[in-house]
Amino acid sequence: MLDVIRAAGTISRVGLIDATGFTGATISTVVRKLIDDGLVLETGRAESTGGKPRVLLQLNPSSRYAVGIHLDHSGIAYVLTDLGGSVVARMTRAGAGAEDPPVIVDRMAREVHALIDGVGVERDRVLGAGLVSPGPLTPTSGMRLAPPPMRHWEDFPLDQALERAIGLPVVLGNDATAAALGEYWSGVINGSSTFAAVYMCTGIGAGMLVNGIPYHGASGNAGEIGHICLDVEGPECWCGARGCTEVLAGPAAVVAAARADAGLARAVGLAGGRTRSRPSVAAEFAAVARAARRGEPAARAIMERSARYLAVAVRTLANVMDLDLLVLTGPSLAVAGSTYLPVIQDELDRAFFSRATHSVDVRLSKSAATAPAIGAASMVLQTELVPLQPGMRLPDNLAESERIHTRA
Amino acid sequence: MLDVIRAAGTISRVGLIDATGFTGATISTVVRKLIDDGLVLETGRAESTGGKPRVLLQLNPSSRYAVGIHLDHSGIAYVLTDLGGSVVARMTRAGAGAEDPPVIVDRMAREVHALIDGVGVERDRVLGAGLVSPGPLTPTSGMRLAPPPMRHWEDFPLDQALERAIGLPVVLGNDATAAALGEYWSGVINGSSTFAAVYMCTGIGAGMLVNGIPYHGASGNAGEIGHICLDVEGPECWCGARGCTEVLAGPAAVVAAARADAGLARAVGLAGGRTRSRPSVAAEFAAVARAARRGEPAARAIMERSARYLAVAVRTLANVMDLDLLVLTGPSLAVAGSTYLPVIQDELDRAFFSRATHSVDVRLSKSAATAPAIGAASMVLQTELVPLQPGMRLPDNLAESERIHTRA
Repeated sequence: MLDVIRAAGTISRVGLIDATGFTGATISTVVRKLIDDGLVLETGRAESTGGKPRVLLQLNPSSRYAVGIHLDHSGIAYVLTDLGGSVVARMTRAGAGAEDPPVIVDRMAREVHALIDGVGVERDRVLGAGLVSPGPLTPTSGMRLAPPPMRHWEDFPLDQALERAIGLPVVLGNDATAAALGEYWSGVINGSSTFAAVYMCTGIGAGMLVNGIPYHGASGNAGEIGHICLDVEGPECWCGARGCTEVLAGPAAVVAAARADAGLARAVGLAGGRTRSRPSVAAEFAAVARAARRGEPAARAIMERSARYLAVAVRTLANVMDLDLLVLTGPSLAVAGSTYLPVIQDELDRAFFSRATHSVDVRLSKSAATAPAIGAASMVLQTELVPLQPGMRLPDNLAESERIHTRA
Repeated sequence: MLDVIRAAGTISRVGLIDATGFTGATISTVVRKLIDDGLVLETGRAESTGGKPRVLLQLNPSSRYAVGIHLDHSGIAYVLTDLGGSVVARMTRAGAGAEDPPVIVDRMAREVHALIDGVGVERDRVLGAGLVSPGPLTPTSGMRLAPPPMRHWEDFPLDQALERAIGLPVVLGNDATAAALGEYWSGVINGSSTFAAVYMCTGIGAGMLVNGIPYHGASGNAGEIGHICLDVEGPECWCGARGCTEVLAGPAAVVAAARADAGLARAVGLAGGRTRSRPSVAAEFAAVARAARRGEPAARAIMERSARYLAVAVRTLANVMDLDLLVLTGPSLAVAGSTYLPVIQDELDRAFFSRATHSVDVRLSKSAATAPAIGAASMVLQTELVPLQPGMRLPDNLAESERIHTRA
């Protein structure tokens, strides 16, 4: 019901009856409860079309809030969104790095409270926190088969630890799927039935939405395009397979190629010395990407090689899913998206299998750096705003005898 | 409603109320109509559990039938299924070959009538025909970007021509998606949430079901795993891209490799001479597959190379979709599946990205040769058996005032 009101902007009770198929009595009861809880406001009256003017309802965006956390080796991004999904506060802090999970969880709790207090939102208006991280996730909690820099997070009970530390309910999710949800929530992908967000941070992944609903797969780990094989004889990837997109073209491969060119490494300012003392892969990748944007030929060549590989993997994703829209997102594509976009669009225009029936539109995200965190917050909001469908349980305070009616 | 009865085997009216959430009055009206139409039978009474014994209902499988047609260059497979999805007649005839579409359509009409008349089914009990063929399909009718041997079918108005010729409604679909539906309808894939059928006939494709529902993508062309790139520098495929699975490992590649080995070509009985006078690619592939099964070393080596490539493409599919079950199906895997299965299972056990959270079970279809035709018939049945959901229109003969009720 809340989602119908949010999507409509303003709507009358009669409009809600038409949109949901519930009876007037049900709508009346639910709306009264939503107004009592402060979630919905009466905002005026619609123009009369002959009968009595109708009172208009709208979401009260500042009645509830949600926290979104995007945890990565290279950075932790936070957003606070209101009930309408608008970002009211955002901040980025140091990544998880090599520190122990409990230390990071304590820091995240302090940072979440600073985020909420910074904009003066009362804590009891915050519904909960969504936390997204590299997959695969276990069905219940924590990371499993985590990428090498986060290997020490494997099987750490992240949701329980964070819930205790921040005193709010926590929902876990996959970073790439959350990025897709964040793009959808930001409203950029209207009209697409099969949409994917191609996501690059430290690793490469994709999130898919089918008719606006995240596609999770059997264990919440769908969309692993970083591990599409592009060369059966290629170099070994950390996942155990050979020739994966990530090992050929991911940020770490780009940084390694740049470091192998002494002149370029100096020009870009890549640190030498031991691996542990270097900045994060994502930060070094960003430095190479900026050099490419400045026109540095060696950096451009490395980036374009990466883009060509990623473009082939994206074409495979489009061929398997029969996509019509792709958004490039995530922190690493926030800095390098303008290099990758034309290469990917060209590949799809030239070789997407079903190009005779439709094209695949590739766009750059307008919120590439924070899309996963926005998606994480929207996972929390969706538990409140989830579309009310016939057969779903209404809130407990509605009488047991209350029935949902839809037109035959 | 019919689908609920079909799935249950036998069920009482009270059971239908519980299963569907409709009121007793609605169930009573709909069941009366189904009995009047001969679709449902009353079959006895359930054991009394204290109250009045309940009359049990079951589908009358011989009340309606559906035709499934699988059209390929190499063969045309037909099935007639009853309302319960059981195959009551099947036959395979010569493929579309190089003949003009109208000639083939006329022949298909004769063959459909022979199929129906052969088992003495009255024509007015046949609901319609599903026809599946290699994709991509246009949104409304006919093939688009057809593989080379069927290029002359492009944009031919197949559904209209066949409807006129056989005098039955026709539904078109993609062969690989139909194969997945056929496997599902055959009941082999219980308990899988994300299932794919890997399909090989003249080409290679895949059909995917998510919670039992076919995944179609933006234009009905999802699952094109034959055009997953395995080598960015590989040979050019007919689709315009390089290094596709199909050009590296498909039946035509297997046959070409066998023909290049003069001793093997002689042992297998591959015809020389001009391409047009040879048997179909699928028939020649089957000959190589049989030689491999006999232990012919050169044939085994060629088949195993194909299997290793296909296994990598299947792993990509599993990584993107996070699958938990795969069935190998289609005419070419009906003859060669036992060679491909262990190679694919091994690849997934060793390198499926989310193998730490769950395995991917690979099975050989029990009806690999006819699964697409069974799926084609089930597309027709689904229009009759489609789950009745609140909000759907009931049959027109139900009073306009009739309402569907579900529990709140």
